[in-house]
Amino acid sequence: MFLSVCFSAQTRGFMDMINWQRLLAQRTVGMRASEIRDAFQLAERPDIISFAGGFPAPESFPVTELRQVMQRLMESEADVALQYGPTEGIYELRCLIAERMSREGILTKPEHVIITNGSQQALDLLFKILINPGEPVVYELPAYIGGINAAVNYEAKPVGVRQDEQGLDVGALEQYLAKQREQGAPLPKVLYIVPNFHNPTGVTLSLSRRERLVALARDYDFTIIEDNPYGDLRLEGTSLPHLKTFDTDGRVFYLGSFSKICIPGVRLGWLVADPVIIQKVCIAKQGSDLCTNSLGQKLVCEFAKSGLLDQHIGTLKSIYKRKRDLALAALTEYLPKEVRWTQPQGGFFIWITLPAHLDAKQLLPGLVAKEKTAYVPGGAFFVDGSGKNTIRLAFSQVSEDDMAEGIKRLGRYLDRMLHSVRPTRAEAFRSA
Amino acid sequence: MFLSVCFSAQTRGFMDMINWQRLLAQRTVGMRASEIRDAFQLAERPDIISFAGGFPAPESFPVTELRQVMQRLMESEADVALQYGPTEGIYELRCLIAERMSREGILTKPEHVIITNGSQQALDLLFKILINPGEPVVYELPAYIGGINAAVNYEAKPVGVRQDEQGLDVGALEQYLAKQREQGAPLPKVLYIVPNFHNPTGVTLSLSRRERLVALARDYDFTIIEDNPYGDLRLEGTSLPHLKTFDTDGRVFYLGSFSKICIPGVRLGWLVADPVIIQKVCIAKQGSDLCTNSLGQKLVCEFAKSGLLDQHIGTLKSIYKRKRDLALAALTEYLPKEVRWTQPQGGFFIWITLPAHLDAKQLLPGLVAKEKTAYVPGGAFFVDGSGKNTIRLAFSQVSEDDMAEGIKRLGRYLDRMLHSVRPTRAEAFRSA
Repeated sequence: MFLSVCFSAQTRGFMDMINWQRLLAQRTVGMRASEIRDAFQLAERPDIISFAGGFPAPESFPVTELRQVMQRLMESEADVALQYGPTEGIYELRCLIAERMSREGILTKPEHVIITNGSQQALDLLFKILINPGEPVVYELPAYIGGINAAVNYEAKPVGVRQDEQGLDVGALEQYLAKQREQGAPLPKVLYIVPNFHNPTGVTLSLSRRERLVALARDYDFTIIEDNPYGDLRLEGTSLPHLKTFDTDGRVFYLGSFSKICIPGVRLGWLVADPVIIQKVCIAKQGSDLCTNSLGQKLVCEFAKSGLLDQHIGTLKSIYKRKRDLALAALTEYLPKEVRWTQPQGGFFIWITLPAHLDAKQLLPGLVAKEKTAYVPGGAFFVDGSGKNTIRLAFSQVSEDDMAEGIKRLGRYLDRMLHSVRPTRAEAFRSA
Repeated sequence: MFLSVCFSAQTRGFMDMINWQRLLAQRTVGMRASEIRDAFQLAERPDIISFAGGFPAPESFPVTELRQVMQRLMESEADVALQYGPTEGIYELRCLIAERMSREGILTKPEHVIITNGSQQALDLLFKILINPGEPVVYELPAYIGGINAAVNYEAKPVGVRQDEQGLDVGALEQYLAKQREQGAPLPKVLYIVPNFHNPTGVTLSLSRRERLVALARDYDFTIIEDNPYGDLRLEGTSLPHLKTFDTDGRVFYLGSFSKICIPGVRLGWLVADPVIIQKVCIAKQGSDLCTNSLGQKLVCEFAKSGLLDQHIGTLKSIYKRKRDLALAALTEYLPKEVRWTQPQGGFFIWITLPAHLDAKQLLPGLVAKEKTAYVPGGAFFVDGSGKNTIRLAFSQVSEDDMAEGIKRLGRYLDRMLHSVRPTRAEAFRSA
């Protein structure tokens, strides 16, 4: 008896005394760590040129302006900024968002807005109120991992529909839906999409597909989560209307974020939806975290009210345009001719497709070790297990000085790999 | 056709075109808005003396010190404070918490700690990884509403065990467990408890019950969520060891919070658990909100590192001791002799029990209208629907000037009610 107590104390943390299998919920079985975050850990070493993290450029943070706003805030509104706030978010900020949304063509009142702990929380809460175990959710092939995992954590069954350079292939979606209906198979209740400067591919959904997608949602009675963190960072061309502007009955849920247009360190996103949904999400949020941090809400609200936000978005666009242009020029110069990539009109990402016989996940450790350069292997973004020969390149966080050098290293490495890894007969056929 | 489109546009928000019944998840059926928050809305009018909100005293916020720390932070560490952080929380803060916990008798390494968006999020994530629909979770009668709702949102079945002035009645718990086992009925996997200066009752779990409770958890193989937001605010007497200090195999999950000892506006709580649980919670948090706000983490971390936190806790104790003493003295002076209340040794709350025939929820509107005073009706804290004759009095946020006056008004009102609302024969018998 004494021995066993000693043993249990010594091995705590090494060997479980508890049968966690019995105690953990069924939904933990499907939960998986984001492969992106694993890639970050590998890639965030200071000696590495990393195209992995889809983080905003730290040199872009409006530090001086935020410091001044913060100073004013602590002098005059500390009692609000440091206290608990309402679950829906601070009213002033909800008004400000409603106004911005209305300007963008979505007629929005403050009661259509809830502030969340990053738009990731809005995703979590929407899936919490929408998804029963086993129900299908439609994703693009590829799709943002956080959008996939949020639903998988509620035991959703992800279904993939292919994407091309015009965004989600709405025709392919319609075929899938028609087939499900015909076979009496379960129809999805939710489709998740990033219509502008897609994460991970950088592509933008065309105007005609936007209209058709919302019409399909009506026909097949599903909802759409329109996740738009990059929409304000258009670097060329004309903005397209949000999916939500085509919504006639409240089935499109619009998600916005201050992470990419202001700072991510305050974790502020928002959801625009009909009051019936806002109310459900609000009740779910009460149980999830009571409220979003007031300090960040007041900070961003004051920053925006002073006109600094729109000014800052202008600055960001020139920063990211220079970076994107540098990246695209370097890709043209240094990448082997067998490799293809997208031409994003905004956002943070370029998507690279290698010949089919190359596996980007297998290649990564060599690139890190030999060339001190990193990316995120694209396979993690595919709910159907495909896409092994794809790469997400985030140009947002790499310095202008490192951009060409990093892509040169990538090109050199891929060149070597293309001439050392021989395709099997079947793979060579597929990639032809 | 044209008509129907116009109609749908006009009535949006008033009449649903969508059958939300079909689209919403089963778990939304049990979700309910926190009754506390409804009481807040009634009570937070400036002309009301409100004992409703369990908020920290705003005059206690260390504004000057935080402003200085923030200034330093924005000068030297803005790149970290404004950027995304790791899901587990900023390492430096995890180390600081591990050190504090170890000092309090829980041997903790940074890898045993995850930072959450308030301890409410730790609750949500724990229930997310532990609870399948229909499984019982044990609560005290009464218990903190946020602790109940977090589990109910995952379709847990709350079970209540009575509390007395020594805290949870562990004997009654054992009887319940033995009966369940005997009958082959489902045994709970989780018990939720606030052992120190309980919300809502203010009572503290005795030493012997602490030890016995953890032993029971081992015998019946359930886990314990030890929620301790008020523990540092002991106003008299000696601290008792945390439940987690009796834990030999990792089944006690300890929750801490900076909301009551520093500020709530940054939403910072933490969970201490074995790495196997921290890892699961971390994966769940990736899908829930990616990470907690870095700005708040850096702010509180620097505040604590400068020695300001411990100093501030000292200040808070004198503030809340004065308030509690004023409240207890006024209760003795003004409340009718038929009314009883608890004597908290710390925290924010006093618990009032009225004669059984009075309904605190029915009485509240009259108190607000006629006496401009408010509380939270206690019934909302009981998972079994009892406790209608109870009241939670939060003394934390009421100014010293208002304390006696507010309680005087309450006493006067209760006095009138006691002599106008006549008990039924059965009720008079029960309350005797």
